[in-house]
Amino acid sequence: MARVVVDVMLKPEILDPQGQAVANALPRLGVTDVSSVRIGRRIEIEFAGEADLDRAREIADKLLANPVIEDFDIRVAEDA
Amino acid sequence: MARVVVDVMLKPEILDPQGQAVANALPRLGVTDVSSVRIGRRIEIEFAGEADLDRAREIADKLLANPVIEDFDIRVAEDA
Repeated sequence: MARVVVDVMLKPEILDPQGQAVANALPRLGVTDVSSVRIGRRIEIEFAGEADLDRAREIADKLLANPVIEDFDIRVAEDA
Repeated sequence: MARVVVDVMLKPEILDPQGQAVANALPRLGVTDVSSVRIGRRIEIEFAGEADLDRAREIADKLLANPVIEDFDIRVAEDA
């Protein structure tokens, strides 16, 4: 068993209204030192055998991320 | 500027239909060695000054995660 983690985030130039909504709510919690909040997805892919990064990249490319507006990053999880 | 990353994932005992849908689509891509896919959220909180983990934990607890069904993990991003 090996786990690969895929982090999918909006590209920096794409507006993130969901993150903006969280950032706008922070002053009400008394938080004033946060300059931005960005919200993306974290996907954990559990392989039955060895972790296969090339395979995970293919899955991310075809099923998990929209390459027009999102970037993704792939790594083997340290704890698995 | 310092960046704190919050990973929010469904608790292991909670069903993840979105991840299940991705897992079910994999055989059509020719991928047969993946045993499970779990989909959660990754939030990047950018602090104007120093990273404040306690503050980030409070934000995650109150705004980002649903403690009934989700666990979260907080760390300072290495690259920021």
